[in-house]
Amino acid sequence: MSFDMLQKKIIEKQNPTIAGLDARVEYVPEYILAKYTAQYGESLQAGVEAIYEFNRGLIDALCDVVPAVKPQSAYYENLGWRGMEMLEKTIQYARSKGLYVVADIKRGDIGATATAYSEGWLGKTVVGQSSFSTFDADCVTLNGYMGSDAITPFLKDCEKYDKCVFALVRTSNKSAVDLQDQMCGEKHIYEVMGELTEQWAGDFVGEYGYNRVGAVTGATYPEQIKTLRAQLPHTFFLVPGYGAQGGTAEDVQYAFDANGRGAIVNSSRGIMCAWKKTGHNGEDYQQAARDAAIAMREDICRFITIQ
Amino acid sequence: MSFDMLQKKIIEKQNPTIAGLDARVEYVPEYILAKYTAQYGESLQAGVEAIYEFNRGLIDALCDVVPAVKPQSAYYENLGWRGMEMLEKTIQYARSKGLYVVADIKRGDIGATATAYSEGWLGKTVVGQSSFSTFDADCVTLNGYMGSDAITPFLKDCEKYDKCVFALVRTSNKSAVDLQDQMCGEKHIYEVMGELTEQWAGDFVGEYGYNRVGAVTGATYPEQIKTLRAQLPHTFFLVPGYGAQGGTAEDVQYAFDANGRGAIVNSSRGIMCAWKKTGHNGEDYQQAARDAAIAMREDICRFITIQ
Repeated sequence: MSFDMLQKKIIEKQNPTIAGLDARVEYVPEYILAKYTAQYGESLQAGVEAIYEFNRGLIDALCDVVPAVKPQSAYYENLGWRGMEMLEKTIQYARSKGLYVVADIKRGDIGATATAYSEGWLGKTVVGQSSFSTFDADCVTLNGYMGSDAITPFLKDCEKYDKCVFALVRTSNKSAVDLQDQMCGEKHIYEVMGELTEQWAGDFVGEYGYNRVGAVTGATYPEQIKTLRAQLPHTFFLVPGYGAQGGTAEDVQYAFDANGRGAIVNSSRGIMCAWKKTGHNGEDYQQAARDAAIAMREDICRFITIQ
Repeated sequence: MSFDMLQKKIIEKQNPTIAGLDARVEYVPEYILAKYTAQYGESLQAGVEAIYEFNRGLIDALCDVVPAVKPQSAYYENLGWRGMEMLEKTIQYARSKGLYVVADIKRGDIGATATAYSEGWLGKTVVGQSSFSTFDADCVTLNGYMGSDAITPFLKDCEKYDKCVFALVRTSNKSAVDLQDQMCGEKHIYEVMGELTEQWAGDFVGEYGYNRVGAVTGATYPEQIKTLRAQLPHTFFLVPGYGAQGGTAEDVQYAFDANGRGAIVNSSRGIMCAWKKTGHNGEDYQQAARDAAIAMREDICRFITIQ
């Protein structure tokens, strides 16, 4: 259980890559958008339909190559409630194709509010005597600035529905240094956060040795990943920053354990927007995404062997 | 501008209270829910319609007493996309009644992703040559764990559309101590975060002396509010924790400046669920909410004079 389901899919596909589904309207090939603006005019509806077709095409092209996808909520929220409806449908479609879905929501709130978030994203919401799933991802990203109250309410649904969370520890962006790299005594703030996530997870570990509270650890600082991997032996890592943000396969190898397990590396634009580099007009976006995902798998597997 | 619009409404109503709109289905009087389950069965749609009627009733009852409302996104997301549609309508309805709307979303993501969140919540999203507002609140809450990248992209929309943000500094929940109270040299992490928010805001200050990046500072620790008020003279405070979480009017007085300005105090269940304490079946929920909001205003104004 815990991250076992994800780890199994990674082993099956021999690929520790998670593909971002973070489309802005301008990432969608023009011929797709044109089809929907012809039907709905220049409107939120046209944008939503275009991105949904693009997402389904990406999922179809990637589902036998990558184990998981990561839709980023911001790129659905900016399209309002129609975007959120499309996010629900995208998550359902990806899961129906056997993909593990991490909803990248980075929510961080407390107690009853965290419970409500968990109902929406991992569990169920009660109306009268009935209960209903809505976004229903396999896993979400969370922000633990508010402490355990922001994480533990999700763990009930994780146990009940066999789901997991990733908490932000050391992110891959430049300004992560502003707060995360400041020193608390002998430790960086991100190390304090890392230890907290291991505490919050409790004693449970799954078949592969990992608990239910993973950590987001950026690929741009390999020394930091090395340290965190040693400090947090039971924590599954989600590694952003490969490619566009400067992280290399050589850097990310340190996120994995000795068996090549315990981590998954994200690529969003590198896969999603690969069609922009082929010199065509986007009609090859599926092949381009698939080729990019295969190239990324081969790149990372030069440095690790997944057992 | 900056927080001037909010401050003006506070002065007009002589009330520094923001009412939470955080309804769970079980907070809605039963006769309202029964009406919609009769129509839609036990369904998400019934829950959404019931909460929307409750929200409108609360807004009608409160709009000449309080200056602002704060819908908490979690309590809409747990109802899926239908909940998000209702959140859009609730925000529109509240603004049409002259209320300042703080969307309590606590988002915290970087660069292009933060820009997308800002498009959805404060600004506009572009499709082709046209642009569209969706959630369109006056202000949002944000989480700065990822550093300036998580805040500054919002400031462009703040300037363009005269909007503001609140960043989490010291929250009111018990486990806030886990991270926020740890020491970085001579300072608590929350003080480091407070100083960062003042840096991120830049030099701009509005008519009342406040910049565009406010801070969430919990009411449960008055000594901390006192310190932060002194350290952050240009930072507008959003103060949770009054009532249910144990903060008193005596405690929150320290959030205000010498003119009784620069802060707003939140109450959610204390107002929204006041009907549960009157011994009736909820048909008096509007009067009960209004009475509770007036009592809270009088309670706080025993300790401050708003000039």
